[in-house]
Amino acid sequence: MGQDDCIKVIGMKFKIHQTHHTICDFDQIYKYIEDNAQAKKGEIHLFPENFLTGYPLADLCLSKSFIKSYEKLLSKVEKFTKNLPKGAHLLMGGLNYEYTDSDIPSKIKNVIYHISKDGMRDIYTKQLLPNYDIFDEKKYYSAGNEKAILEIEGLKLGLLICEDMWTSNVHDIDPVGKFKAGEIDIMINLSASPYNLGKFNKRVSRAKSISNKLQAPFVYVNRVGGEDEILFDGRSFIQESDETFYTANLFSEDTFEYELKSDYKYSTPVDDKEENTWESLFNARVDKDHKIKELNDDDCFELLEALKFGFNEYARKSYFNNFTIALSGGIDSALVLALIRLGLKEGHYLEAVYMPSIYSSPLSYDLSSELCKNLGIPLYNLPIKFLHSTAKNAMGGTFSMPFEGIADENIQSRLRGTLLYARSNQINSMVVNTSNKSELTVGYSTQYGDSVGAISLLGDLYKTEVYALCRYINKNHGNIIPKGIIDRPPTAELREGQVDSASLPEYETLDSIAEYLLSNRYTKEDILNFGFNREEIDLVFNLYKKTEYKRSQFCPIIKVSAKSFGFGYRIPIAKQSSYLFAEGDK
Amino acid sequence: MGQDDCIKVIGMKFKIHQTHHTICDFDQIYKYIEDNAQAKKGEIHLFPENFLTGYPLADLCLSKSFIKSYEKLLSKVEKFTKNLPKGAHLLMGGLNYEYTDSDIPSKIKNVIYHISKDGMRDIYTKQLLPNYDIFDEKKYYSAGNEKAILEIEGLKLGLLICEDMWTSNVHDIDPVGKFKAGEIDIMINLSASPYNLGKFNKRVSRAKSISNKLQAPFVYVNRVGGEDEILFDGRSFIQESDETFYTANLFSEDTFEYELKSDYKYSTPVDDKEENTWESLFNARVDKDHKIKELNDDDCFELLEALKFGFNEYARKSYFNNFTIALSGGIDSALVLALIRLGLKEGHYLEAVYMPSIYSSPLSYDLSSELCKNLGIPLYNLPIKFLHSTAKNAMGGTFSMPFEGIADENIQSRLRGTLLYARSNQINSMVVNTSNKSELTVGYSTQYGDSVGAISLLGDLYKTEVYALCRYINKNHGNIIPKGIIDRPPTAELREGQVDSASLPEYETLDSIAEYLLSNRYTKEDILNFGFNREEIDLVFNLYKKTEYKRSQFCPIIKVSAKSFGFGYRIPIAKQSSYLFAEGDK
Repeated sequence: MGQDDCIKVIGMKFKIHQTHHTICDFDQIYKYIEDNAQAKKGEIHLFPENFLTGYPLADLCLSKSFIKSYEKLLSKVEKFTKNLPKGAHLLMGGLNYEYTDSDIPSKIKNVIYHISKDGMRDIYTKQLLPNYDIFDEKKYYSAGNEKAILEIEGLKLGLLICEDMWTSNVHDIDPVGKFKAGEIDIMINLSASPYNLGKFNKRVSRAKSISNKLQAPFVYVNRVGGEDEILFDGRSFIQESDETFYTANLFSEDTFEYELKSDYKYSTPVDDKEENTWESLFNARVDKDHKIKELNDDDCFELLEALKFGFNEYARKSYFNNFTIALSGGIDSALVLALIRLGLKEGHYLEAVYMPSIYSSPLSYDLSSELCKNLGIPLYNLPIKFLHSTAKNAMGGTFSMPFEGIADENIQSRLRGTLLYARSNQINSMVVNTSNKSELTVGYSTQYGDSVGAISLLGDLYKTEVYALCRYINKNHGNIIPKGIIDRPPTAELREGQVDSASLPEYETLDSIAEYLLSNRYTKEDILNFGFNREEIDLVFNLYKKTEYKRSQFCPIIKVSAKSFGFGYRIPIAKQSSYLFAEGDK
Repeated sequence: MGQDDCIKVIGMKFKIHQTHHTICDFDQIYKYIEDNAQAKKGEIHLFPENFLTGYPLADLCLSKSFIKSYEKLLSKVEKFTKNLPKGAHLLMGGLNYEYTDSDIPSKIKNVIYHISKDGMRDIYTKQLLPNYDIFDEKKYYSAGNEKAILEIEGLKLGLLICEDMWTSNVHDIDPVGKFKAGEIDIMINLSASPYNLGKFNKRVSRAKSISNKLQAPFVYVNRVGGEDEILFDGRSFIQESDETFYTANLFSEDTFEYELKSDYKYSTPVDDKEENTWESLFNARVDKDHKIKELNDDDCFELLEALKFGFNEYARKSYFNNFTIALSGGIDSALVLALIRLGLKEGHYLEAVYMPSIYSSPLSYDLSSELCKNLGIPLYNLPIKFLHSTAKNAMGGTFSMPFEGIADENIQSRLRGTLLYARSNQINSMVVNTSNKSELTVGYSTQYGDSVGAISLLGDLYKTEVYALCRYINKNHGNIIPKGIIDRPPTAELREGQVDSASLPEYETLDSIAEYLLSNRYTKEDILNFGFNREEIDLVFNLYKKTEYKRSQFCPIIKVSAKSFGFGYRIPIAKQSSYLFAEGDK
């Protein structure tokens, strides 16, 4: 904004609504508007992308029931505009439907509605529809192709929706590039931007670049919510050149106000093509020694908040108040129990079940018991020894073949799954999965056994990250996870003397190879060139390619990284996988 | 083609290759080219869309290993062109990659390669990238925007790739509309078009319309294959005005030749906007009385072929030769066993396991036994009575709460799942799921119990369709399914005297409501207006909305209808579902 025309914005105030609603909860969304959107003269209220519907909707946006309810909401909001005083403005993300003659949506646009006493108009359509990884926007929405500058009382507002702020070598359009420096007084981005570790810094870094380039403050409005695997972290902020003026709450709703200043100093804009591009999403989180990056305290804090929030969102929206966790005496189930305990809501009930077989060591019980004591959680001891031998006898009575090896290992895991769900049925509790990302990558679990559960908290954390998070929790929450659990060698205890390290590479190695394979989608040769051992690479790739079927039936995984298994990971199960191997290496 | 210039095409022959390769099987794909693409002078060989890679690839097309192997194949094909005599031509579907500086694909185009002695050129890029239902092409591919006419020896070939042939009110472009009547001598469409019941007639109907409109014969080249849930049925054909000249094999590879005639008579083109549009995909398969359409003999024949083929494809590509099916004495498991038996390959082993609980009637065993005798399949009797009581005792020993109701019902189902997979581990066999689409719609199954399996054969068939298929099989394959199985009332036999009809509407009603809900995505009011009973609609909608979590962890379902559960069905699990209900009806 030029200093000479600062007069026009005097008294104009922005109010940022970082909202938190369940998708399709039209009643609560309208109630929020009634209670919180009574803007006064001289106020511009900002709401997130798709505020009026929630996000992501997937096929719901095609459902006639959904559309009917949504159109009703729009009518109510239109009526609401009559209450607004002159000079009061709302900018709200929503959808705009066009229909064919046969009443099927012919076009759905992801838009910004400008709402004032003069009515409700869609004034901007999102141009850059993300369609990579978890995003499917091109499946449902039609893109706009024009930039929008809204003039309110002489003030020029540049408008963007979420992905529009990004730039990439692979996108055909660059919505930010359509604006000239000095052309607008403020840039507004209404977002519904999924969380992953490190994403916030990327947003701020890109906002800084845009603010300096366009010589205008940048307002970032994000929603809050957990939608199955996808989290929205909020943390709406305002970037004035190199400074972040305000950052809203992490994972909870928030509102704050912002008044345009009369002068800003801008830095020389830098070319951020590489650092802030879409492509940078694909980069593995590894250090220069090709080891998976260690989580620092800030990372751990953020992850802990993310997992507690994601779990509680899923539980609330699935109407569960009781939770049952199977403890093995190992680190994964211990962390899951601790995470849920740390985020447990008033009136919710959490219990642990320990199900020893003949191969379980007494240590496993002792450690589980110590953990539950530390957390104040009831622990039930439910031995499967007799059930296991009964099942073996039943098999032996019908099939003459000896019952041993993998059959005898997996049956223990599946009997545990069966009893766990019997308990779940008994008290109407949700079973929470305890697998981690390392196990998922190599399929090191029993389908319908230890892989069961309604939601996975650790499925996007490698084993090394599970350890880091446990250590962080112990440091900050009084050593609630027994040291013995952290120190003992990982084991499935399905046969005598079993340890993970006999079947898998050390987790530090496995995790680094997995991260290169999943994030950058590197070849074996690429990874070999990073200095890893050929046998270990072969082992990881071999186990990975054989176990797609297990991942395909897995429960939703709370997504905390840029590349998680789940909705954004789409690999055919049945395929010829010799392409994975180098020449002469099949 | 005008009669005056027929001289130019004399001696020009088309050879259609309806191919069948596993995705990414670059060795076999190249071998096919070496063995079958040695075109002679005056020959134009046609291969399906994405012939060089297979389809659909999903994220595989982004994997560096995949790309490296594919680029190697392209080099080999380029070398192969040197062997071609002058005047010989190949048209092959494939992908064309462009890269960023950092070696990430910046653009992937779905193209037609023209291959001749002069080399290998991509001459056409698919314009209409399907992105609805199971399709994700906009996620991976960049669309072309120009029509292509290839001139070979004075002959003008119009080029299309698959979806390009369709027209719609919701598509922005109409690739066929870019051609003028008489402008080309022949229209060629290279396809990889997924199967569903009725799709073939739609293709022919649209081809007829195009042929008449452009006054040129229409060549449709399709691939064959089963890729997880998606089938490609082949049935390549040539449409000359109103006549179909040739139809290639259903679900198996085929080649045939076609020579352009010197004259064709064309009918007056009809406007097929409604009949052949994309929108028509959404129409429920119901008759004018709002009852789910009855399958006729042709439908049943096609479905039988589809399911046998889909099953064998999945089994082969997953490297399984042994198959284990749990028989209940009911119609679903009987049909699954019969289907697999009818398609069983030399050297494959199929067995059935019957697992009675205290609630199983002796009739269930007798019927299972009769079925297995008819099919010549070994039947193992593996009672779960003792295991069930042992599990109950174990639960009772740990938890003071009585063990009854849903907990006691589901544990039987899960113990069966456990034993079934124990057997699967013992002989390395694939467990095939036996759920049907009616059950899936209302979640009438036990998660990790009767819902287990590697692949589902009936998951896209309503219960009424299961009956129709059984009757068809009995009529055509000597009454192999005992009449008692078809006639008895459906029951899960998990408690005394249980029958499905006590918990669910009659299947005829359930199926019709489900079809309206899933295909047209109708509201409850819409369905009420069709004359259904409010209580039954409420029951179906209520059960449907509560059971998304079960469908989300289900195995791949062989897709035989336009709208199946599976990859193309994307509904959030956790949501506010009051939108499903009419005002005052929550």
